[in-house]
Amino acid sequence: MPEVVFPLDSTKKFTDQRYVGHNRWHPDIPANVTVRPGDVFRVHCREWFDGAIHNDDSADDVRDAPLSRVHVLSGPIAVEGAEPGDLLLVDILDVGPIPQEDSGPLAGQGWGYTGIFPKQNGGGFLTDEFPDAYKVIWDFLGIKATSRHIPRVSFTGIVHPGLMGTAPSADLLARWNEREGELIATDPDRVPPLALPPLPQDAILGTLSGEEFDRAAAEAARTAPPRENGGNQDIKNLTKGSRIFYPVFVPGAKLSMGDLHFSQGDGEITFCGAIEMGGFLDLHVDLIKGGMETYGVGENAVFMPGNVDPRYDQWLAFSGVSVTRDNEQRYLDSTLAYKRACLHAIDYLSKFGYTPEQVYMILGAAPIEGRHSGVVDIPNACSTVYIPTGIFDFDVRPSASGPTRIDPAPGVPKSSF
Amino acid sequence: MPEVVFPLDSTKKFTDQRYVGHNRWHPDIPANVTVRPGDVFRVHCREWFDGAIHNDDSADDVRDAPLSRVHVLSGPIAVEGAEPGDLLLVDILDVGPIPQEDSGPLAGQGWGYTGIFPKQNGGGFLTDEFPDAYKVIWDFLGIKATSRHIPRVSFTGIVHPGLMGTAPSADLLARWNEREGELIATDPDRVPPLALPPLPQDAILGTLSGEEFDRAAAEAARTAPPRENGGNQDIKNLTKGSRIFYPVFVPGAKLSMGDLHFSQGDGEITFCGAIEMGGFLDLHVDLIKGGMETYGVGENAVFMPGNVDPRYDQWLAFSGVSVTRDNEQRYLDSTLAYKRACLHAIDYLSKFGYTPEQVYMILGAAPIEGRHSGVVDIPNACSTVYIPTGIFDFDVRPSASGPTRIDPAPGVPKSSF
Amino acid sequence: MPEVVFPLDSTKKFTDQRYVGHNRWHPDIPANVTVRPGDVFRVHCREWFDGAIHNDDSADDVRDAPLSRVHVLSGPIAVEGAEPGDLLLVDILDVGPIPQEDSGPLAGQGWGYTGIFPKQNGGGFLTDEFPDAYKVIWDFLGIKATSRHIPRVSFTGIVHPGLMGTAPSADLLARWNEREGELIATDPDRVPPLALPPLPQDAILGTLSGEEFDRAAAEAARTAPPRENGGNQDIKNLTKGSRIFYPVFVPGAKLSMGDLHFSQGDGEITFCGAIEMGGFLDLHVDLIKGGMETYGVGENAVFMPGNVDPRYDQWLAFSGVSVTRDNEQRYLDSTLAYKRACLHAIDYLSKFGYTPEQVYMILGAAPIEGRHSGVVDIPNACSTVYIPTGIFDFDVRPSASGPTRIDPAPGVPKSSF
Amino acid sequence: MPEVVFPLDSTKKFTDQRYVGHNRWHPDIPANVTVRPGDVFRVHCREWFDGAIHNDDSADDVRDAPLSRVHVLSGPIAVEGAEPGDLLLVDILDVGPIPQEDSGPLAGQGWGYTGIFPKQNGGGFLTDEFPDAYKVIWDFLGIKATSRHIPRVSFTGIVHPGLMGTAPSADLLARWNEREGELIATDPDRVPPLALPPLPQDAILGTLSGEEFDRAAAEAARTAPPRENGGNQDIKNLTKGSRIFYPVFVPGAKLSMGDLHFSQGDGEITFCGAIEMGGFLDLHVDLIKGGMETYGVGENAVFMPGNVDPRYDQWLAFSGVSVTRDNEQRYLDSTLAYKRACLHAIDYLSKFGYTPEQVYMILGAAPIEGRHSGVVDIPNACSTVYIPTGIFDFDVRPSASGPTRIDPAPGVPKSSF
Repeated sequence: MPEVVFPLDSTKKFTDQRYVGHNRWHPDIPANVTVRPGDVFRVHCREWFDGAIHNDDSADDVRDAPLSRVHVLSGPIAVEGAEPGDLLLVDILDVGPIPQEDSGPLAGQGWGYTGIFPKQNGGGFLTDEFPDAYKVIWDFLGIKATSRHIPRVSFTGIVHPGLMGTAPSADLLARWNEREGELIATDPDRVPPLALPPLPQDAILGTLSGEEFDRAAAEAARTAPPRENGGNQDIKNLTKGSRIFYPVFVPGAKLSMGDLHFSQGDGEITFCGAIEMGGFLDLHVDLIKGGMETYGVGENAVFMPGNVDPRYDQWLAFSGVSVTRDNEQRYLDSTLAYKRACLHAIDYLSKFGYTPEQVYMILGAAPIEGRHSGVVDIPNACSTVYIPTGIFDFDVRPSASGPTRIDPAPGVPKSSF
Repeated sequence: MPEVVFPLDSTKKFTDQRYVGHNRWHPDIPANVTVRPGDVFRVHCREWFDGAIHNDDSADDVRDAPLSRVHVLSGPIAVEGAEPGDLLLVDILDVGPIPQEDSGPLAGQGWGYTGIFPKQNGGGFLTDEFPDAYKVIWDFLGIKATSRHIPRVSFTGIVHPGLMGTAPSADLLARWNEREGELIATDPDRVPPLALPPLPQDAILGTLSGEEFDRAAAEAARTAPPRENGGNQDIKNLTKGSRIFYPVFVPGAKLSMGDLHFSQGDGEITFCGAIEMGGFLDLHVDLIKGGMETYGVGENAVFMPGNVDPRYDQWLAFSGVSVTRDNEQRYLDSTLAYKRACLHAIDYLSKFGYTPEQVYMILGAAPIEGRHSGVVDIPNACSTVYIPTGIFDFDVRPSASGPTRIDPAPGVPKSSF
Repeated sequence: MPEVVFPLDSTKKFTDQRYVGHNRWHPDIPANVTVRPGDVFRVHCREWFDGAIHNDDSADDVRDAPLSRVHVLSGPIAVEGAEPGDLLLVDILDVGPIPQEDSGPLAGQGWGYTGIFPKQNGGGFLTDEFPDAYKVIWDFLGIKATSRHIPRVSFTGIVHPGLMGTAPSADLLARWNEREGELIATDPDRVPPLALPPLPQDAILGTLSGEEFDRAAAEAARTAPPRENGGNQDIKNLTKGSRIFYPVFVPGAKLSMGDLHFSQGDGEITFCGAIEMGGFLDLHVDLIKGGMETYGVGENAVFMPGNVDPRYDQWLAFSGVSVTRDNEQRYLDSTLAYKRACLHAIDYLSKFGYTPEQVYMILGAAPIEGRHSGVVDIPNACSTVYIPTGIFDFDVRPSASGPTRIDPAPGVPKSSF
Repeated sequence: MPEVVFPLDSTKKFTDQRYVGHNRWHPDIPANVTVRPGDVFRVHCREWFDGAIHNDDSADDVRDAPLSRVHVLSGPIAVEGAEPGDLLLVDILDVGPIPQEDSGPLAGQGWGYTGIFPKQNGGGFLTDEFPDAYKVIWDFLGIKATSRHIPRVSFTGIVHPGLMGTAPSADLLARWNEREGELIATDPDRVPPLALPPLPQDAILGTLSGEEFDRAAAEAARTAPPRENGGNQDIKNLTKGSRIFYPVFVPGAKLSMGDLHFSQGDGEITFCGAIEMGGFLDLHVDLIKGGMETYGVGENAVFMPGNVDPRYDQWLAFSGVSVTRDNEQRYLDSTLAYKRACLHAIDYLSKFGYTPEQVYMILGAAPIEGRHSGVVDIPNACSTVYIPTGIFDFDVRPSASGPTRIDPAPGVPKSSF
């Protein structure tokens, strides 16, 4: 086990730890830790809600989830010698749930959760079709996940950090706030909102305090979206053995991370679609000096996925195009096309006895693949979603004899406003 | 070799063949051929432009390509006993270039092409960045493709039909025309257009003639977009061994197909991004009576990909989010995110010596994967594009020593208006 | 289609073709054809028995198969400039059954066969357990094979040449005859024999005739075994996209090939365990001058398998050790260990209703994997055989509910002496 | 983390632990622990030599390794309700090095070793060619291994237990001793020996003591070979996610395990070819009552490998046939054929600058595949060994420009008698 440079104690709140991380992006949050190029080290990560979601059969905690408090991130970790313009190489040597703790109240202690967030508190990809709150608890059995809320399905986790990134420069942060503010201004009262502006309430900014805290909290960016620095990319393929190259925008790079997922489908479609957990990351870092210019990487992570993600050989796939359910034609809208493909999958699997919520949760959490199949055939984008048939313990393929009916009981806990 | 139920003679024009296919969708185009459930048969397919694009070093033919004439499709093929509400099972037993003909003027005779269409004649995914016409010729060497216009790259083809589908019902056709007409009406003079309305000019409608032809040609749908009937889905994974389930909207199902691709990347991003060719399809068909209702498949194909597509183990991946190059924030726009990811790949590989057009063409034609990685993290969608490093004969990974420089000569033929 | 440099007419016997190949190895067989380094060309290949095995339901032809006449090989093909000491690079660009002919009396015309050879005429890996003759006919459905003699199983073919190699030098041939003669002499009357000595009867030696023929026929090596020149290696992984490096022992290299297989399991255990067929090979050749010394390749082929063989993700595996059924302990005998593993697989699958012969045939023909798992743990070698569960249309995994019983009818044709 | 039912303290000898395991097979060794069908639990395992091999640069410890003391096994673990004739289902939920300990004197604390054992103390697959002792230390970097003794190579571990099995019945044990004794008697003074007879010296038999110990020690079987009960099968594919079915020979099944490997090639050819380490196993067990008869499993494990072993797409393969280096022809001897294939690989890679010992060690430890390619083509078996090219950081493929030369320093520590 590499040296733990950022430890977390499962019995304490995120803000009571030896090092206090952060839940906003700001260049002025001081690094807690410094490592050197070539170093190998371990970082503990807390689940994104710091324990607000429980291992029980009620979705009230999801309905009322305190979105202003997320994501609790470990870091910043300074890398000695890193300067703006460099590429920060990060190898994910290993990643997993909280070691040696397989039971307890914290997600990551042998279990994790997925949630469908209600339209009035976050929403999700299919929030128009699923406006209420739902929660599913998943148990970890070695490398596999199963759920008491969704029978007859189990899959090998494709464990990864949902969120990792470097700190933005002050300029970059200003650009974020400007463009996101402009978007919000086009429909400021929308539910769910178009974007999340800086919010001092519940901000955690490491060791910043006093006036410095207040100034930074007023302008620090929310962690929900992925941006030029990486961030909440939710790329399911950033699993063990992956190598990532992040642009460096501030001296020391200031790498932060969190939002570990035991598994996730492409898109993380239920919003909290990945199986959320705390755990650990073993990392190796290095620098490519001046690499941003040398390699033309102005923004966003470049990466090489690992070679041990679960192998499935048979897939059932659904396609969708960019037409709404009301027959409105949109122009090359891949987001809509993917929505329609996912809805087709839900319609299909519901015929086997699952509730639509169960299927929606499977699509969020299982290692499904979501592809941009066609993006040029005007006016329709075509997106496809691939489900490994091997995650079910019954045959989900179409046949002349019709679908096997399974018993979906007890179903997914639901909570409404 | 199964019986050829729809033969094509490479020395004759598409309209001079034994059976004349079609290049528009209309329920009234009579079936040329009838097969039975359980049958195995071969269909010849012509490349989508019926020979208008040549194996030479000029992009003039792409610049002036007659888009009104595409796609020349083989069929319709009636399936005995098929009725609206059924699912038509189609197995792609085999698919390949024109058998026994490895040289000649027709794409599919040992070669194929990819094109970047100019903004004024079709455009493409990155038409703002690449407004002119370009063409690349690819040679087939068994299962691999190489190009004299793009050095140092070769890849195993992921051969598939870009277009296959059943005939729309009159109602469905009317819905298409209504919704696409409404979209066009929002900006009727846009270049490139938002969508393509029915166009009697150059319409080919099988054996229809006289008044019937005129009536159908006036309302028949263009073949460019994928729609509820399958159609031009450009799903690269519909390769050998795939099983597809199409909804049936008219008696006999009236299956048609064409637009064969020797290889294609997810999205087919240069518009004519796949390696276009003529060739053959060996198919097996069957019916799931009443399957649309039984399996909840109201529209769009459901499919199971084959298990022999090329295997690559190492990928270099690029991510993008839904922010324009001018820092305009869009809301969960996966199309834009995928554009940005592709542009990042182009920026990167250009540092190795390729021209941007060469990289754009590689992304269109090679078996790259395009994924919806994040679709819920407001306001940014995150899309990723994965390039197999093994298609290059030099090392394309980032390293401290910087990129190897290759000689891109002679480059990609270009043609401007 | 590349130029056919070695054509075969399906309506004529092997000896009545434009070029006559050979069925023995000898350095003096003149090359029929000459190609140059860098050339791409097609070679037709006849099934190994030149049509003696029929598409019917009797195993008499297998029982009486004329082993003195095999393998009918296409070649020799001279490579311009090749000299002893070079490595001959051969790319298998494509390989398949007889093009455009899917019915007819020759294996390769849409069908192929596997046989269990009787102990008195060839025998096989498990000849003590299966001393009689059996035959199974397989039908090709695109890339898949099924059999009327073995229900409920189908698999994607892993098409490859069972036999390819360069001509031996006179010295090398002499070494073969010496060592094989010494082995035979240890038990000259064994049934089946330990090895096959030169046999002028039924020898085919290309254009050799008269005294030259007689001299060569008396010393030419049989084609059954693989040897330093490659030869009948029966490596199932030499499929499309493979690159092979053969040592060159004579001027011109004199490459020959044949014994095409639609599919085969590791070991080709029933002797004629692969699905035998005629067909075509598209090849590209090149030379590494002096490569034998440079790369330390004194003998036997070095190769890089292709990347399109069928992908299966779930395997059921059986292990065996080097102890006989009579509890006799052998010392690190991997051959015996693999036999025991195969017998375990037969015992197991027979519990599902298959006859032992059916399972034996499946192990010979399907893309099973046979591994040297342990070779040092004295006194037991441990070998393992892996069967893809996806080739069966029922569940073959062990479970508390016991095996599903299938109907094995009509079973495998048998013929005894 | 599941409950640890068999704990080991890294600071204490194997015989000073809370539970004392065993290093011989005997039905009378009492179970230390009892679990129930359906249970999930963790077992600690000690490296097979209990710490006798050190993390240093001398091979003296390998030369003098106390083979009479191996393998130190964890167990026996009784499974409630298991009876002779049942199948014991074992799921490997997880497996890895010693958790939370990445430095220290015990293999498994962040490092492991491979050894070539000298001919006079164990020998190995190629002991005639490599008669001396050699040792290589491997460092674990997350899921990858590298070595200071072998530059330019790293690979993803295919972690697995080398040894797991149920206890033999008294009858079965007697059969082992009988047959192995008979083999030894054929050449009792052979170096290395043909097999290892019972040896009371250094025997560890759990809680047995006094006369019971003496009687059992005199007849208990050595753990080196795999046998009907599973045992030291050294199957590299028994990695995470695997499900194994063991025959049950005694009440309670009495499952034992150990000899963990961070990685291993097929055959474990250097004898101690796997990267040896201690660590943990997370297991789930269940019973198929009467499964031996129901499924025809009289002996040896049946298993289903997991789906997360490392994925490599490009392999360089070597073939060998059953002829000795002195041109002696052996009859279908797959062991010899595999030896020759491995020697070819050594000859080849040595041309790149590696010492033969370095290549031999790579073949032992890296995830190479060893296949029974042909076992029926009299008189030559053909075996093949596949090396993933991606484990080297330079190009190991043959080319016209000849091999890249690497610096093999400092090389592999050696020790002679």
